[in-house]
Amino acid sequence: MKVYEIQGAFGIDQLKEAERPIPVPGPGEVSIKLRAVSLNSRELGVIDGFYNPDLKAPLIPVSDGVGEVAALGEGTTRFKIGDRVSGIFTQSWISGEATRENWVSTLGSPLDGMLAEYAVLPEKGLVRVPEHLTDEEAAALPCAGVTAWHAVVEEGRVKAGDTVVVQGTGGVSLFALQFAKLHGSAVIITSSSDEKLKRAKELGADFGINYKQTPDWDQVVLEWTGGRGADHIVDLGGSATLNKSIAALRVGGQISLVGGLSGYQVDGFAIIPAILRRARLQAINVGSRDMFEAMNQAIRQNGLRPVVDRVFPFDRTIEALHYFAEGSYFGKICITF
Amino acid sequence: MKVYEIQGAFGIDQLKEAERPIPVPGPGEVSIKLRAVSLNSRELGVIDGFYNPDLKAPLIPVSDGVGEVAALGEGTTRFKIGDRVSGIFTQSWISGEATRENWVSTLGSPLDGMLAEYAVLPEKGLVRVPEHLTDEEAAALPCAGVTAWHAVVEEGRVKAGDTVVVQGTGGVSLFALQFAKLHGSAVIITSSSDEKLKRAKELGADFGINYKQTPDWDQVVLEWTGGRGADHIVDLGGSATLNKSIAALRVGGQISLVGGLSGYQVDGFAIIPAILRRARLQAINVGSRDMFEAMNQAIRQNGLRPVVDRVFPFDRTIEALHYFAEGSYFGKICITF
Amino acid sequence: MKVYEIQGAFGIDQLKEAERPIPVPGPGEVSIKLRAVSLNSRELGVIDGFYNPDLKAPLIPVSDGVGEVAALGEGTTRFKIGDRVSGIFTQSWISGEATRENWVSTLGSPLDGMLAEYAVLPEKGLVRVPEHLTDEEAAALPCAGVTAWHAVVEEGRVKAGDTVVVQGTGGVSLFALQFAKLHGSAVIITSSSDEKLKRAKELGADFGINYKQTPDWDQVVLEWTGGRGADHIVDLGGSATLNKSIAALRVGGQISLVGGLSGYQVDGFAIIPAILRRARLQAINVGSRDMFEAMNQAIRQNGLRPVVDRVFPFDRTIEALHYFAEGSYFGKICITF
Amino acid sequence: MKVYEIQGAFGIDQLKEAERPIPVPGPGEVSIKLRAVSLNSRELGVIDGFYNPDLKAPLIPVSDGVGEVAALGEGTTRFKIGDRVSGIFTQSWISGEATRENWVSTLGSPLDGMLAEYAVLPEKGLVRVPEHLTDEEAAALPCAGVTAWHAVVEEGRVKAGDTVVVQGTGGVSLFALQFAKLHGSAVIITSSSDEKLKRAKELGADFGINYKQTPDWDQVVLEWTGGRGADHIVDLGGSATLNKSIAALRVGGQISLVGGLSGYQVDGFAIIPAILRRARLQAINVGSRDMFEAMNQAIRQNGLRPVVDRVFPFDRTIEALHYFAEGSYFGKICITF
Repeated sequence: MKVYEIQGAFGIDQLKEAERPIPVPGPGEVSIKLRAVSLNSRELGVIDGFYNPDLKAPLIPVSDGVGEVAALGEGTTRFKIGDRVSGIFTQSWISGEATRENWVSTLGSPLDGMLAEYAVLPEKGLVRVPEHLTDEEAAALPCAGVTAWHAVVEEGRVKAGDTVVVQGTGGVSLFALQFAKLHGSAVIITSSSDEKLKRAKELGADFGINYKQTPDWDQVVLEWTGGRGADHIVDLGGSATLNKSIAALRVGGQISLVGGLSGYQVDGFAIIPAILRRARLQAINVGSRDMFEAMNQAIRQNGLRPVVDRVFPFDRTIEALHYFAEGSYFGKICITF
Repeated sequence: MKVYEIQGAFGIDQLKEAERPIPVPGPGEVSIKLRAVSLNSRELGVIDGFYNPDLKAPLIPVSDGVGEVAALGEGTTRFKIGDRVSGIFTQSWISGEATRENWVSTLGSPLDGMLAEYAVLPEKGLVRVPEHLTDEEAAALPCAGVTAWHAVVEEGRVKAGDTVVVQGTGGVSLFALQFAKLHGSAVIITSSSDEKLKRAKELGADFGINYKQTPDWDQVVLEWTGGRGADHIVDLGGSATLNKSIAALRVGGQISLVGGLSGYQVDGFAIIPAILRRARLQAINVGSRDMFEAMNQAIRQNGLRPVVDRVFPFDRTIEALHYFAEGSYFGKICITF
Repeated sequence: MKVYEIQGAFGIDQLKEAERPIPVPGPGEVSIKLRAVSLNSRELGVIDGFYNPDLKAPLIPVSDGVGEVAALGEGTTRFKIGDRVSGIFTQSWISGEATRENWVSTLGSPLDGMLAEYAVLPEKGLVRVPEHLTDEEAAALPCAGVTAWHAVVEEGRVKAGDTVVVQGTGGVSLFALQFAKLHGSAVIITSSSDEKLKRAKELGADFGINYKQTPDWDQVVLEWTGGRGADHIVDLGGSATLNKSIAALRVGGQISLVGGLSGYQVDGFAIIPAILRRARLQAINVGSRDMFEAMNQAIRQNGLRPVVDRVFPFDRTIEALHYFAEGSYFGKICITF
Repeated sequence: MKVYEIQGAFGIDQLKEAERPIPVPGPGEVSIKLRAVSLNSRELGVIDGFYNPDLKAPLIPVSDGVGEVAALGEGTTRFKIGDRVSGIFTQSWISGEATRENWVSTLGSPLDGMLAEYAVLPEKGLVRVPEHLTDEEAAALPCAGVTAWHAVVEEGRVKAGDTVVVQGTGGVSLFALQFAKLHGSAVIITSSSDEKLKRAKELGADFGINYKQTPDWDQVVLEWTGGRGADHIVDLGGSATLNKSIAALRVGGQISLVGGLSGYQVDGFAIIPAILRRARLQAINVGSRDMFEAMNQAIRQNGLRPVVDRVFPFDRTIEALHYFAEGSYFGKICITF
C-alpha cells in the first residue's frame, strides 16, 4: 500500500511517499481502508520535528482518518466489514480521566497515523461516525471536533445565555462556534480577516472582531457583554492572547487552553487579573472515546456539518500540507484516497 | 385597589374580590403596578387548602406576576419608575443553596401574592424581564419557567445529543421542552391527547407518546433510544409515573422530581430498578434569583417565547381558575389587568 | 478444586459443595488462588432466588474475594505471580459512566463468583489491595467498601463540617462511617442495639440513635444539627426509612439509595417533602475499577482497617451464611480458605 | 478611637496612628469593638501602594479582624451585643458566584479595614467565629483561612488518598495543609527552611522539600507519587513556581493560583505541558460568606486551630508589619487590642 512517511529528516518537503505491505489485523484489531484524512496544526509540529525531535522514523503522520472496515482480527465484536469508522486520537483513552500512559498512545506520533491506504488499530480505538457526513466531514472530527467538544461542552458546560469567545477560524474554532451555538450560547469570534468574520457569522456567530484592526478585542468583548465579560473563552492563540483572554473574562468564567498559534510560551502571564476574576484555565488535550461518541450523537441528532475548507487528493499531500501551513483556511483541510 | 383574597373558606368559588389600600413601599422596597399574572398548579393547592390548611387569611394568592415599577422606597437602587419587573417566587433565595428559611418567603402563600392591582416587594426580590416578551409571556416565567430551567439546565445540565423526556403539556413541561431544544437535546413528550402531541412537535418535540393509548410509554422510550434509555426525565406525574420514569432512564441518568399531577404519594416506589440504573432523582423547588436571571438571559438571546394557552381579564379570575383546574390547557393561563 | 454451587434449588441449605477442575486462564486472563471471601446481603438474594429466579445453575455465588495470582494467561501485563488481588464486582465497569451492558458482568451472578478455591478473571477485572490489610479485611472491600466510597466520596463529596447519617452497622454502613470520618465529617449512626452504637462510637461516630427506642430518629437528627438537617444520608433501610431520611435532610442535601433492608418497595413515598428540601436521591450500584483504586489509595495512605465481625473456614460456609442471614453482625463476615 | 491610617504616602513607616470618632452603626449595620487583627501579604501591597497607586487616603488598612458586637443599628437581626464576630473579606459576596461589583467591597482597600479600635459593617458582612479559638486564632480566618478552604475544599474537592502540594509556610499554606489533612489527603510541603519543614511535619505534613537545596522539587513530587504527579497544588509562588507546579501535576490535576510571592508576572509560562496534563489552573480570590461559614463549621467540628506565629500589641503595629515583610514567619502574625 501507499503511505507517506517521515523517514528521518524533518520538514514538509522531507515527507516521502513509500510502499508498505498491507497490514493484517491481529487479535482484537481491525483493518481500515482509509477514505479521508484531515490535517491539524499538531501535524505540522510532528513533521517539523517540533513536537518530538527524537521521533523514531519511519513514521506515518496524521492522526485523523476515516475509512471502512476492511478486515477483522480474531475475537473482535464491535464492528463488521464495511462499517465506516474513525480512529480515536488517544488510542488508550476510553472513559473517565486520562493518564500519563495515554501520552504514548496517540496516532500520528508516536504511533503510526492515517496517511496510508490502510491502517490497523485495536477495535476499542475506533468509533462509528455520523451517517449524514461525507467522508471528509467525518475525517474532521477526531482532533478538532473532540477538542472543541471537550472544551465547550464537557468542561465548559456552556449553556443558553452564555457568551463564548472563539479565536480564529481553524478547525477547532469553527467546531467550538458550532457547538456553542448548538447549546444556545452567543458566540463572538475573532479573526484577522473581515471576509472570514463574515463567513463565521453565516455559520451562526453573533459578533465578529477583527483583531488586526482592533488589537484591544478584550475591551470590545467587555462592551459587548455590558461590562460583564465572556463566560467562556476558547484560547487558541496562546502567547499573544492569554492575558487578553483573562481581561475579557467574566468573574468566575473559564478559559479553555487549547493551542498556541502565536507561541506556546507566554511571557508576562499576569496572575493578579486571573485572581480578581477567579478565572479557571482549563487545558484541553483532545478527549476520550466517550467524549467522541457523545459528540457524534450531538452531531447526528442535530444534523450538524463540519466546515471543510478544501480537499486534496492523496498524491497531492505535500501541497495540502503547504496550503495548511500558510494558515489562510476557514475550517478543515482534508485529503481523500 | 382591587384584589382577590382567600378570606377563610377554601375552594375556587370562595375566592373573593376585595378592596385594599394601595400599598406604599418602605425602605428597600418597590411598588409594582401589576399588568399580568399567570397560574400554576400550586395556586390550586393553596386555594383548595391542600398546601396549608392553617393558612392565615386574608391572603392574596398567585405567585407569578409582572408589572411596572410604580414607586420606589427609600434607599432602593436597582430599579427606576417604569421598569418592567417580575417578583421572584422565593423572595429570600438570591444565590447559592436554598435554606429552610426560604420556606416562609414564597409569594402567594404564606406571603401575599400577585392577584392585586399593586404589590410591594423588597427590590432584591425582583428581576427585569426580557424585553421582547408580552406581559402575559413574561408572567409565565417565575414558577414554571424557573422550575424547568433549574431542572433541565442548572441541575440537569442537558447537552446536545441527550434525550429528554417531558411529561404533559402544562407550563413547566413546555418550558422544559423549549429549554432542552435550546441546548440541542432530543425531546420526547407524553400526553393523553394526540392534538397536544401534534402541537408539541410544532414547538420542537422530536417524538410524542400518547400515554393513554400506550401506557407502557417507558418501553417506547427505551426503543426510541435504541435500548439505552433517556438521559433526563422531567417527572411531573408523581404517583403514576415515577417507576415508569426509572424504567425509561439510562444508566447514570437523572429524573427531576417536579410535581405530582397524579398524586404526591408514590406507592410501590421500587428501589432496585433505581439502583441498577444508578438513577439520580433530583427534587426541584422553583429556583433562585440567579437562576431566574440566567434563564432570562437565555430567553433574551435566543428570542424564545413562552407558550400562553389563554388569557383572561382580571374580573374573570374565578373562571380562569376553573379553566385551569380542568387541565385541558397547552401552556400557561394568564390574567391581565 | 472445591467450590460451593447453587445447583438449581434455592435457599442457603441448598448450596452444595462440589468439585470442579482448576480453571486455566485464557488470553488476557489471570488465575487467582482464593484466600478469603466476604459476604454481602446481595449474596442472600442470589442464593434465595430473589435476585434472579431464572438463574442458570450451576452457579458459584459470592462476589467478593481476595487471593494471590496463581497463573497468568497469554498477553497479560498488569500482574505477576504471587500478587495479592481482588476481583472487581462489575467486571466490565472500568472508568467513567456505567452502562446496561454492565448488568451481565457482575460476579456471583450471573458470572461465577468467588466461593471456590480458584477463580479465573480477565486481568482488567482485578485490582491490587492495600498491603497493610489482612486477607479478610481486603476481602471486605469490593462491594461494601466500593459502595460506601461511591456514595460518600464520589457522589456525596462529603467534606469536613458536614453531618452524615449512616443507617445500621453492616459492612456498607461501617465503611460509610469510616470514609465520612476520614473527610472530617460528623457522623450520626442508627442501630437497634445500644451495644452496637457504643462500638460505632469507638470507631468514630459522633452520635448514635437507637431507632427501636426512638422511632422518630429523623427529629433527633434535626435537633442534633440545630434544625438544619443532615447534609448526607446513606439510606440502607429502604421501605421503612426513606421518608424519614428525607425528613432528616437539610435543604439541598443528598440521600444515597443503597439498600432495602426493610424492603425494596416504598409505599407512600412522599414527593412534597423531597421537593421542599430540593433533595437529591442518588442510587448507588457498587462502583467502577477507578473508584475501587481511589478507595484503596485512601485506605492505604490513612492506614484504615475495615471492620470484620467474624471469620469462618471455607467448609463452614453454610453456617457463615446462616449467621449472616440472622443479621446480628457488626461489620463484615468473611470466609477463609 | 485609635486607628492606623494610610494618609497619602506609601510604605510601612508612612502608616500613621490617628484618632477618629467612634463610628455609629446605621440601619442594617453593626459596630464591632476589635480584639485582634491578622496580617496578609495583600496588606503589604496596599500599604506599599502596589495594589492601588490611586488609593483614596486616609484609609484604614488590614482586612481581617475579630471583635465583639458593641452596638446594633436599626433593623438588625443576625447578632446581639457581645457576640464575637469577624468581617468577611468581600463584604458583598454572600453566596454563589462572585461578580465585578465585589471588587469595590473588600475591607482594607478600597473600604476601610480593621486596624482600628472599632469598625462598623453591615450585619450581612459578618460571621460568628468558632468558640474554641482564641481571638488571635479567629482573626487568622477571613483571608488566609477562607482562601485555603476555597482552594482546597470548595474548588479542589480534595479527598482521602489525594496528594496535595503546598508551597511555603505562611498563613494560606498552613491552612491548606490543615484542610487537606482534615480530608485524609497526603500533603507535601515546600520551604526554604528545614526547621519550618520539621514544624510542618509536626502539623501533619507527610513530606517536606527544601526547594533551596532541591530546586527541582517538581521531580521529587513525581517520585514521591510513584511517577503519577500530585492531584492538587496550591501555588503561592507565582513567577518562580508555576511551570514547576505544572510539571509536578498528575494528568487531570488542579493548581490553585493563590499568590505570587516570587512575582505576579510569569515569564515563559509553558502551555504544552499544561495541555499534556489536561491541567486545571483555578485562580482563587478569597471566598464568599457561605464558604467562610462552611469552613467555620469544619473547624468547629474538628477542633482545628490555626497556627499563629507571633502576636504584637496594637501600638507596635509598625513593628509587626516589618516583621511580616521580612517573611520568616510560620503561620499568621496577629495584632491585639
